[in-house]
Amino acid sequence: MIIVIKQGATREEVSEVVQTIEALGCKADVSEGSAQSIIGVIGDTAGLLPEQFTVLPAVERAMRASKPYKLVSRQFRPEPTEIPLGDVRVGSEKIALIAGPCTVESEEQIVRIAKRVKAAGASALRGGAFKPRTSPYAFRGLGEEGLKYLAQARAETGLPIVTEVMTIGAVDLVAKYADVMQIGARNMQNFQLLEAVGKIHKPVLLKRGMSANLEELLLCAEYILKEGNKQVMICERGIRTFESFTRNTLSLAIVPEIKQQTHLPVIVDPSHATGVSRLVPAACKGAVAMGADGLLIEVHFDPQHAMVDGSQSLNCETFERLVGELAPVAEAVGRKI
Amino acid sequence: MIIVIKQGATREEVSEVVQTIEALGCKADVSEGSAQSIIGVIGDTAGLLPEQFTVLPAVERAMRASKPYKLVSRQFRPEPTEIPLGDVRVGSEKIALIAGPCTVESEEQIVRIAKRVKAAGASALRGGAFKPRTSPYAFRGLGEEGLKYLAQARAETGLPIVTEVMTIGAVDLVAKYADVMQIGARNMQNFQLLEAVGKIHKPVLLKRGMSANLEELLLCAEYILKEGNKQVMICERGIRTFESFTRNTLSLAIVPEIKQQTHLPVIVDPSHATGVSRLVPAACKGAVAMGADGLLIEVHFDPQHAMVDGSQSLNCETFERLVGELAPVAEAVGRKI
Amino acid sequence: MIIVIKQGATREEVSEVVQTIEALGCKADVSEGSAQSIIGVIGDTAGLLPEQFTVLPAVERAMRASKPYKLVSRQFRPEPTEIPLGDVRVGSEKIALIAGPCTVESEEQIVRIAKRVKAAGASALRGGAFKPRTSPYAFRGLGEEGLKYLAQARAETGLPIVTEVMTIGAVDLVAKYADVMQIGARNMQNFQLLEAVGKIHKPVLLKRGMSANLEELLLCAEYILKEGNKQVMICERGIRTFESFTRNTLSLAIVPEIKQQTHLPVIVDPSHATGVSRLVPAACKGAVAMGADGLLIEVHFDPQHAMVDGSQSLNCETFERLVGELAPVAEAVGRKI
Amino acid sequence: MIIVIKQGATREEVSEVVQTIEALGCKADVSEGSAQSIIGVIGDTAGLLPEQFTVLPAVERAMRASKPYKLVSRQFRPEPTEIPLGDVRVGSEKIALIAGPCTVESEEQIVRIAKRVKAAGASALRGGAFKPRTSPYAFRGLGEEGLKYLAQARAETGLPIVTEVMTIGAVDLVAKYADVMQIGARNMQNFQLLEAVGKIHKPVLLKRGMSANLEELLLCAEYILKEGNKQVMICERGIRTFESFTRNTLSLAIVPEIKQQTHLPVIVDPSHATGVSRLVPAACKGAVAMGADGLLIEVHFDPQHAMVDGSQSLNCETFERLVGELAPVAEAVGRKI
Repeated sequence: MIIVIKQGATREEVSEVVQTIEALGCKADVSEGSAQSIIGVIGDTAGLLPEQFTVLPAVERAMRASKPYKLVSRQFRPEPTEIPLGDVRVGSEKIALIAGPCTVESEEQIVRIAKRVKAAGASALRGGAFKPRTSPYAFRGLGEEGLKYLAQARAETGLPIVTEVMTIGAVDLVAKYADVMQIGARNMQNFQLLEAVGKIHKPVLLKRGMSANLEELLLCAEYILKEGNKQVMICERGIRTFESFTRNTLSLAIVPEIKQQTHLPVIVDPSHATGVSRLVPAACKGAVAMGADGLLIEVHFDPQHAMVDGSQSLNCETFERLVGELAPVAEAVGRKI
Repeated sequence: MIIVIKQGATREEVSEVVQTIEALGCKADVSEGSAQSIIGVIGDTAGLLPEQFTVLPAVERAMRASKPYKLVSRQFRPEPTEIPLGDVRVGSEKIALIAGPCTVESEEQIVRIAKRVKAAGASALRGGAFKPRTSPYAFRGLGEEGLKYLAQARAETGLPIVTEVMTIGAVDLVAKYADVMQIGARNMQNFQLLEAVGKIHKPVLLKRGMSANLEELLLCAEYILKEGNKQVMICERGIRTFESFTRNTLSLAIVPEIKQQTHLPVIVDPSHATGVSRLVPAACKGAVAMGADGLLIEVHFDPQHAMVDGSQSLNCETFERLVGELAPVAEAVGRKI
Repeated sequence: MIIVIKQGATREEVSEVVQTIEALGCKADVSEGSAQSIIGVIGDTAGLLPEQFTVLPAVERAMRASKPYKLVSRQFRPEPTEIPLGDVRVGSEKIALIAGPCTVESEEQIVRIAKRVKAAGASALRGGAFKPRTSPYAFRGLGEEGLKYLAQARAETGLPIVTEVMTIGAVDLVAKYADVMQIGARNMQNFQLLEAVGKIHKPVLLKRGMSANLEELLLCAEYILKEGNKQVMICERGIRTFESFTRNTLSLAIVPEIKQQTHLPVIVDPSHATGVSRLVPAACKGAVAMGADGLLIEVHFDPQHAMVDGSQSLNCETFERLVGELAPVAEAVGRKI
Repeated sequence: MIIVIKQGATREEVSEVVQTIEALGCKADVSEGSAQSIIGVIGDTAGLLPEQFTVLPAVERAMRASKPYKLVSRQFRPEPTEIPLGDVRVGSEKIALIAGPCTVESEEQIVRIAKRVKAAGASALRGGAFKPRTSPYAFRGLGEEGLKYLAQARAETGLPIVTEVMTIGAVDLVAKYADVMQIGARNMQNFQLLEAVGKIHKPVLLKRGMSANLEELLLCAEYILKEGNKQVMICERGIRTFESFTRNTLSLAIVPEIKQQTHLPVIVDPSHATGVSRLVPAACKGAVAMGADGLLIEVHFDPQHAMVDGSQSLNCETFERLVGELAPVAEAVGRKI
């Protein structure tokens, strides 16, 4: 933390800043410039906030000199984390394709889609059994029944399962069936849920909140790692902006930034990010070209009759064609599909 | 739901739209204009989404003709809901002042602040025992101990207590101590938590999510009312935008809009909305002038040494002066402090 | 400017930073802390940007220690600027009501509205003769003919005229008729236009751009003052956010912030900020309660048949009632209507 | 335009809507559904706005059934527009690389950079002689002198020149030297300037405004085409959001959307969109993978001493390497560098 002292601050006011720093168990490193004095805070500053200092009358500004997270950073672990997922190690050369319907609708539906996406080259099957819904009147998924159908689809195809867990109470239940526990965008800052999935031994796919900035997102990953679970994939799924031709605004620049700042793999969900199936293939190519380690893609054999989010789902034929088109893009950036 | 048919759509494609509508248990009301055909969907459309129709090849656009919520609307209940809170009925003429520290730090701290804000005219005491924190390394509140101190402050001042509940597991515990259950901005769309507080008999203060639009906010209130709890206050606390001179962007126009669309009382939290204590008094006046039924204000006798959010807290003297200044503003719009 | 040096930067890299500072005509004030070195830049730093330093390998961060504007600041001129406008000095106790139609449609229309708003208590007449339009196919105003009708309305009512100028080429023409030159939101950063109105002797009403932050807005005012024109009113008219129940998001916290940081008067335009006439009266009250020095309100005797922006215009009766309702709000904050 | 009538609207109110439509020279196509009546507006509706109808008491909603632009649309011109630029036809198979410094600083600087980018494979040279600057105290470019240096660089390399024009008064001057007239983001809605470049016979590169949505952007292109100039390239350069790790938020989904909706070529400017040179190579690959027809890249032989925007400029070596890396990405999507 670096604290800039106001011009004209009195000696007493400055000494109050020093005392505040020391009371927090840190050391103050005062530099009196001819025009401007600055105080560096030395010690364990990870839990400190600039606001704790700007409230003091002598302080013009306070800002972090270092990142507020540790365990997720490249400094802490220089080599990339790789997470096994079916035939892929997510974060290595091969790009993970996680495909499937928004929502599990029936055993027949999920098994049929699983077979199609497996045949097309998917590494894992996505599908929601518990669905967060904006309206209390909307369909919220089949619950445990849906999880069982997912397990059946896995039994028939070998595809590992990525599915969402929404509450602490359901962590054990979902973990019984899922291979990867998905934390949805609305739950990104459900800190107790993060800690709960931090205590289990399954990979976690953490989706970026709709209005979360990079630092907040990485601090949520830090919550999970801090509890002992090192297998976290971070997922960009679009942010909320004024743009309205897409459901959210896909912000791909975060992909290379996370890869540079952290050792964690990054997944992109172009289906939710755009909300428009005709833009999904281009968005997948963009994500791969910018360094994504995996894609989370909604696929349905009959998007027009999907119960949820049909307008953003690819049909199976488009998905098959897309996998073929992605291969050369992956190769162009030194990766594989 | 109104569905605009594409020019040039075939008879079969249009008939597919009609079948989809009927499969959803609704009736299709087709109007063939000379230039453009339109289909109205009649029946229980509350759970339907435009995306369920735009996915069909014949559909140019689909949009709701009516609001997706019922129980919270003025149509459903024309007279305003009033919620008892100490000496105030929130939603009636008198404006509720809910004041106190961001976080309960000790029994002495909370009792001392409670006495000061009570003397200054507050109707209720705010204070967090469970705090959502961006960083896993930050102080997260005293937990049940904090709730006990709040109860002690109530015992000594008579002020009812407004405090946050963050998890379903803690609903009973918090309800044992709290007079009003606060749902924080990050939990606005924690739908299971909404349902849990919808089942208890305590008023709920529902904070708007950082990037929630009006419809999403009201649907979250609907979640609570649907479970049987009619005592919901809606709280504007600033939204996330590109503006950076404040922590969030206080969007006061939502106050008269919610008052017109719903029967629920509206509270404004200028402390979180601005994040800057010197802007809080003006923001309080603006909120009252625009029709707020209550204010949620952070007050601390020593903001510089508050453990959390000191930079947005008023000191007690400023709060006392503010109450005096708010009275004529309230009167100017036909209200009372 | 304060420059934070990376840990582990070499002596040569640090010395490169010092040389860069000196090459820019400034002096470097190096403070070597035990953990972190910091360099203060001393001298005329108004034209410097942090980016000029972050590009150097030794630099971790660079940030301004002082505001980038001078002439608009309270430090430069502690007493508030007051600008004469009819019977009001904008920025003094009395609040300016600038009312009128979005667009001048005919002599009869503008004269009729001028008489009505004058009788209701307006201090000035607004009305556009040159209109910026999103579509090239929309009506763009009557041009000079419109200006003549405005002059006629002034002749019949004594109300000074506030009207927009869109191009450098039209500055002299508009100045011939207008009492206040309005710079629209889309032209806020039309820097040559700002300089052109900076050279004339008429007050300027500068509207905030749709996505302009506080600093950018004040730098645009600085552009005008720098050319010699000290009579600038700053106008908040809503910003672009994800919110969609209003046309823009009215951000009233900027009103007290500008009053604290600068000596310039602040006007609020609730008509464009909300785009919804039923929210305008509440927004006017909020603006006055938060310290606005004036209001810019769209009024039309027949909003349903206005050629432009009818949905955000008050009718004359509502405006008359509003003026009556605003008087006690103004008094409640020590002002007058 | 489709108008939804409120339930319970009277016959007189509905007939007022019909009269309003007819007064605008259009025809009303009324469909009385059993639950909801709807009116279609038939005729030349390009200049109409939904707000002209929502102001009427009978109207629940009004929305466009068709796009408000014509000349830019694929319906109007199905085959893609190709614009000659040096050895490329922008919009055809080969992708245009427009590279160069943010600002022309000297003849030596621009000629040296021109030679380097030419050798690396650039199709055109970018460089600003007139620079819009947030602060009135910052360097604003060399003006006509800068244009002459650009012409000299063209003479020595054969590279066509892309440079910004900021005012109507400078259109002829800039056109004398430039091969492509750039309209900057702050001037996107400077409608008179759009019309001025619409009247000349040079290609225009139109940058998206910082908070412009897709429709507004395409209407600005329509302004130019309407004046007769068909050679318009549209440029995505990032939008303003809450994200702060980049200068703007690069929104690549607009690339395939513009390609589907219009016949115009699309350019991406990753330098301004990210503001961070280390993210530029990945962003270029993403843009190409998503279908961009060209890239506008800031390159400087000494970014650390560039007068403007050094932190987002690539050095020449990085640019050379990037061109090599882009070639396989282009091929992977059926294009060429």
